[in-house]
Amino acid sequence: MPDPAAVIQQTVQVTFRYPVAFTTRLFDPANSVLRDVVADEASAVYPKRLLAVVDAGVAEAFPELDGQIAAYAAAHADVMTLTEAPVIVTGGEASKNDPALVTALHEAIDAGGIDRHSYVLAVGGGAVLDMVGYAAATAHRGVRLIRVPTTVLAQDDSAVGVKNSINAFGKKNWLGTFAPPYAVLNDLHFLTTLDDRDWLGGVSEAVKVALLNDPAFFDQLETLAHALVARDLDAMAPVVRRCAELHLNHIATSGDAFEMGSSRPLDFGHWAAHKLEQLTDYEVRHGEAVAIGIALDSTYSYLAGYLAEADWQRILDLFGNLNLAVFHPRLAEHLDDPEQSVLGGLQEFREHLGGRLTIMLLRGIGHGFEVHEMDEALIRQSIARLSILIAATTS
Amino acid sequence: MPDPAAVIQQTVQVTFRYPVAFTTRLFDPANSVLRDVVADEASAVYPKRLLAVVDAGVAEAFPELDGQIAAYAAAHADVMTLTEAPVIVTGGEASKNDPALVTALHEAIDAGGIDRHSYVLAVGGGAVLDMVGYAAATAHRGVRLIRVPTTVLAQDDSAVGVKNSINAFGKKNWLGTFAPPYAVLNDLHFLTTLDDRDWLGGVSEAVKVALLNDPAFFDQLETLAHALVARDLDAMAPVVRRCAELHLNHIATSGDAFEMGSSRPLDFGHWAAHKLEQLTDYEVRHGEAVAIGIALDSTYSYLAGYLAEADWQRILDLFGNLNLAVFHPRLAEHLDDPEQSVLGGLQEFREHLGGRLTIMLLRGIGHGFEVHEMDEALIRQSIARLSILIAATTS
Repeated sequence: MPDPAAVIQQTVQVTFRYPVAFTTRLFDPANSVLRDVVADEASAVYPKRLLAVVDAGVAEAFPELDGQIAAYAAAHADVMTLTEAPVIVTGGEASKNDPALVTALHEAIDAGGIDRHSYVLAVGGGAVLDMVGYAAATAHRGVRLIRVPTTVLAQDDSAVGVKNSINAFGKKNWLGTFAPPYAVLNDLHFLTTLDDRDWLGGVSEAVKVALLNDPAFFDQLETLAHALVARDLDAMAPVVRRCAELHLNHIATSGDAFEMGSSRPLDFGHWAAHKLEQLTDYEVRHGEAVAIGIALDSTYSYLAGYLAEADWQRILDLFGNLNLAVFHPRLAEHLDDPEQSVLGGLQEFREHLGGRLTIMLLRGIGHGFEVHEMDEALIRQSIARLSILIAATTS
Repeated sequence: MPDPAAVIQQTVQVTFRYPVAFTTRLFDPANSVLRDVVADEASAVYPKRLLAVVDAGVAEAFPELDGQIAAYAAAHADVMTLTEAPVIVTGGEASKNDPALVTALHEAIDAGGIDRHSYVLAVGGGAVLDMVGYAAATAHRGVRLIRVPTTVLAQDDSAVGVKNSINAFGKKNWLGTFAPPYAVLNDLHFLTTLDDRDWLGGVSEAVKVALLNDPAFFDQLETLAHALVARDLDAMAPVVRRCAELHLNHIATSGDAFEMGSSRPLDFGHWAAHKLEQLTDYEVRHGEAVAIGIALDSTYSYLAGYLAEADWQRILDLFGNLNLAVFHPRLAEHLDDPEQSVLGGLQEFREHLGGRLTIMLLRGIGHGFEVHEMDEALIRQSIARLSILIAATTS
């Protein structure tokens, strides 16, 4: 019955371009990185309007920031004007659990006359950038978003990507869109005040991309591990940079930046990580959970015969040298109740992606590959193995 | 100060593909168009879940529709399963003014287990498709949306495009995203119950795309005008088809499908149209307002010396033959108060687009071109000219 002549096959190609800059002291008036991004010559209407939104945790760690942003805008008044004083929003995962924050930002965007050629400048951790990004992406079908990530995890991973989200129905990232940023401006100086857990937690995403694609980067992480633990900013700079670069390369070359298929390589280790975060009420932070999730799927890869024992050992050793735990007691609890155990994370992961279950495993360091099912008995063995290892280490 | 080596220039290309089908009796179980769209072989998980959402106006005009959709799903149970009975939502512009409708759809999407490889099937006029599209685009960062437009305006224009929206802060389309549909299925049979105003109103978008790009289509519209007024479905079919095709071509070839620049050719005549709709509390419907907006900018093009008098006359004659008014008294009122007159629409249009004002005018039939300013005195003259013409015609 369908008449092929009665169907138009529409193809729409959209090209998004955005700079990801690595700088320090972004709001020093002498630093032209932000000015150059805002000065979009094609628009020809100056000064451009800019609404600054700042993570409360960052505002607390850098009490001078508010004044610095205002001074920067004043020094570059020919190009930009702040629509109001920076808006301070709740930091951390709480910012994604309160839809009223999105509504408040919509009101500020409307009141400030922010249009599709104006800017929202979001300064904060990954959760705040996710929430502000969702508000910006839905206002006027998307106003320009400049992300200034302030944590290792946001600088090397989430903030360089094309997604935003808030939580809904008790589910992480249930509401959101794909919306590439207008620019990402990474300022190393913001990392100096992070607590040790957040400083090191973000490195787990670097281990992840190294394991998937870049054995030389894995070597480099081994070399830098002790300097990273010692909070050496000069060691962190190339780690953040290379991790962001690998992440960006993946998005640009995957052929599926908006995730219309089922493959999700960058979610290596994440099915267990997301569930562990939820099971511990986010007491285990995302970066920490990712380290555990990677250790679990690496152990599974080893026990299934895909990964050599020496490679498996190197992975566990690297996490050890980075002071990142590869096990948490909650991982081994309630394994007979899918809702209450990490095993349920597999089904939730499939539901979130939709379609066919697709999981990344390892054949070697720098060599990820995909499978479409996991053996539950082998996952239990992997959990038991990690639990024994930890017991041996800590006894 | 900025170090070029410290910037990664990211480029992300995303390709969207969707079929726009022209059929009749879409929900006849013997019609495989919907089945073929839902049966996405790459996903390999069957049956696919589908949440149907129906415009209350359509449900009233076609009381049997609810049962037909259920019967269709039952007849194709190997491929699709309805998650619940079709959800009926308010029709018309009111559907875009009530954010609770979006929340209710999010709840239905969550409760129905609709994931990124499941479907929302939206049946209705352009406003309902806009609202449902916004809900679908933000759930799980976008679940698959199949649009079944039921009006001339939606079939030939809004539903084939890549946008969705609801109204907020008293402003049309303030919230929304760019999100191409998974498929658009045009069923001519739905047009049979439209009232005359909606049947003819949608033709104004066909006049628009003909004026911009396709003089032969303009000729065809002149030839078909009387048959269209006589409600000849065989005359309407090629008009809807060609208008949709020109619209799709524009989106595919403009190089700016997500409207990141300032040029917006398909908004020819729309700056005045949107404002007139608002000024009359939507008593003037969108298609009718577009006819008036096109007449206004055509008259401006003529008075400014761009458009030949004979071409201008042909445009007015075509609208006359289509029973579409080219003037409304509200167009000439309160011209000294920008907020309360159509003249304010120009500034609002610039603000909605952002950046530089860009307006489409005509050099001839089938030949649009852009300007970046309009002369207010000449707009007033154009309004006066249309007002006199109407007075002459109706006296």
